[in-house]
Amino acid sequence: MKIAIVGYGNLGRGVEAALLAAPDMTAVGIFTRRDPASVHSASGMPVYHMDALESMADEIDVVINCGGSATDLPHSTPALAEKFHVVDSFDTHAKILAHRANVDAAARKGGKVAVISVGWDPGMFSLTRLYATSILQDSKAYTFWGTGVSQGHSDAIRRIEGVADARQYTVPIETAMERVKSGEMPTFTAAQMHERVCYVAIKEGADAAAIEQAIVTMPDYFAPYKTTVHFVSLEQLHREHAGLPHGGKVIVSGNAATGSAHTIEYALKLESNPDFTGSVLVAFARAAYRLGQRGEVGCKTAFDIPPIYLSPESPEELYAHLL
Amino acid sequence: MKIAIVGYGNLGRGVEAALLAAPDMTAVGIFTRRDPASVHSASGMPVYHMDALESMADEIDVVINCGGSATDLPHSTPALAEKFHVVDSFDTHAKILAHRANVDAAARKGGKVAVISVGWDPGMFSLTRLYATSILQDSKAYTFWGTGVSQGHSDAIRRIEGVADARQYTVPIETAMERVKSGEMPTFTAAQMHERVCYVAIKEGADAAAIEQAIVTMPDYFAPYKTTVHFVSLEQLHREHAGLPHGGKVIVSGNAATGSAHTIEYALKLESNPDFTGSVLVAFARAAYRLGQRGEVGCKTAFDIPPIYLSPESPEELYAHLL
Repeated sequence: MKIAIVGYGNLGRGVEAALLAAPDMTAVGIFTRRDPASVHSASGMPVYHMDALESMADEIDVVINCGGSATDLPHSTPALAEKFHVVDSFDTHAKILAHRANVDAAARKGGKVAVISVGWDPGMFSLTRLYATSILQDSKAYTFWGTGVSQGHSDAIRRIEGVADARQYTVPIETAMERVKSGEMPTFTAAQMHERVCYVAIKEGADAAAIEQAIVTMPDYFAPYKTTVHFVSLEQLHREHAGLPHGGKVIVSGNAATGSAHTIEYALKLESNPDFTGSVLVAFARAAYRLGQRGEVGCKTAFDIPPIYLSPESPEELYAHLL
Repeated sequence: MKIAIVGYGNLGRGVEAALLAAPDMTAVGIFTRRDPASVHSASGMPVYHMDALESMADEIDVVINCGGSATDLPHSTPALAEKFHVVDSFDTHAKILAHRANVDAAARKGGKVAVISVGWDPGMFSLTRLYATSILQDSKAYTFWGTGVSQGHSDAIRRIEGVADARQYTVPIETAMERVKSGEMPTFTAAQMHERVCYVAIKEGADAAAIEQAIVTMPDYFAPYKTTVHFVSLEQLHREHAGLPHGGKVIVSGNAATGSAHTIEYALKLESNPDFTGSVLVAFARAAYRLGQRGEVGCKTAFDIPPIYLSPESPEELYAHLL
């Protein structure tokens, strides 16, 4: 399978490495909207301008779209799906149905397969929620995120006047997790399950108290959450908070129809959020290729794909050793 | 969907309850090789002799085969697959390839779908191993069973001369689990990951020391494991060890291609092993029906089935709320 990477940020770098490690894939190159001469790939993989993508269509089986969910993917994935099998990690939960409809129409028009919203949430966490609630009908699924860096919340702090740089950690509340595990099926808002811990470096002369106030009162992002702000130097911020760790847990507690109690828990501890998401994208690119080979068209999610399509191993190998 | 239950032990009772709770399924009845008049179903569901099954084929969409893996399923699932869509929980890992081949031939002959080896291991644990190792190619999957009752090991103790009844718990070794979670990817035998704790009631006049010796030296079952034997009265055994709890963890630790470290953990805590397995069988019966409606034939495992087929909810509902 010949795979192209579109976009080269943290996620694109994670995809690049995973792709080179895949035994059954060949990397065609990285495609960027920037000047290709200004982009140096970690592996030395060739970098092309996006304008070259279509002319290289014969050399490409699947495109992995590494753009951002807020403004890029809603446009770029449908555009790509008209011409290529494509995979993305669209993660704005509230807009997945609309994205799916747009991508599906484009992919059907082009006779292609498009796999959207794969990563860990949406992605592996979604699969856990689906399998668990399909098995235990009288159950409730709880998703705890963290401890990990939220790029969206870090960006929101950076936009405040006087902030030089910032990093926000989403931290699950242990007591809430314990209540979920006990099987009592509590009703929680996201703010009752998580707190937010911020490390902020301010510009010289900026008003720390006013910045802290602006953070903790910011609607949606911080106001409903218990939020702690630590002011640190820019140097300390970059030294101690450079990584992008993340993770979390899906816990489904419920009852079998006889009344017996069961708990299903799926936990991820990720040293690098974009590396892991990139590895998920590469596995689903394999599935997109195989679905395309089978003649399938349209938009697919992790829910729609037989898990065996994700592995480079043969079915016999997998039945014998992993089943 | 009209569903029939074949076999009525602990697992059949779990399936019965899950089936009655499923919003989209109708229970046809329980089919047994015993005298139907001697079998009283928990729900009052009708009980028929196995000989009646074929004559009722028009009323049945899927058969859930609740027989045992050791001697029953290897014969009964292929026989059923010639006439019905069928689901089983065949769990002898070493013989899955052979079982799959036999069932596949029979199902293809009959133009039916047969789903084998669904439950929690094989089943949900297998899915975790497959997804995780497909994502993290440089990784190792570890499966810890327990704390829970192993029926096979309990039976092995019961067969020893002088034993009135017994219950064996498989217990994961915490220090082994910690080493796996640390990411060092140790090489372990099953005996380095688990110990065995036995509660044994002996017959009057039986030689406790000889029985203990027979247990701890029993090849395969106990000899390689750290095994502890507690002698208890029959009354205490039945009072304190009547349940069939089980569970365990799949832990996959590995590295993304960039070298960053990641841990994926899936844990089940089951108050009743047969109730949970029964609930899994019912969800996969739904998938078998849907695969059959799509015109698929042959033997399938959890690896081959799009997860969305397991849920009674509509795809739109699932994309909107669980993805």
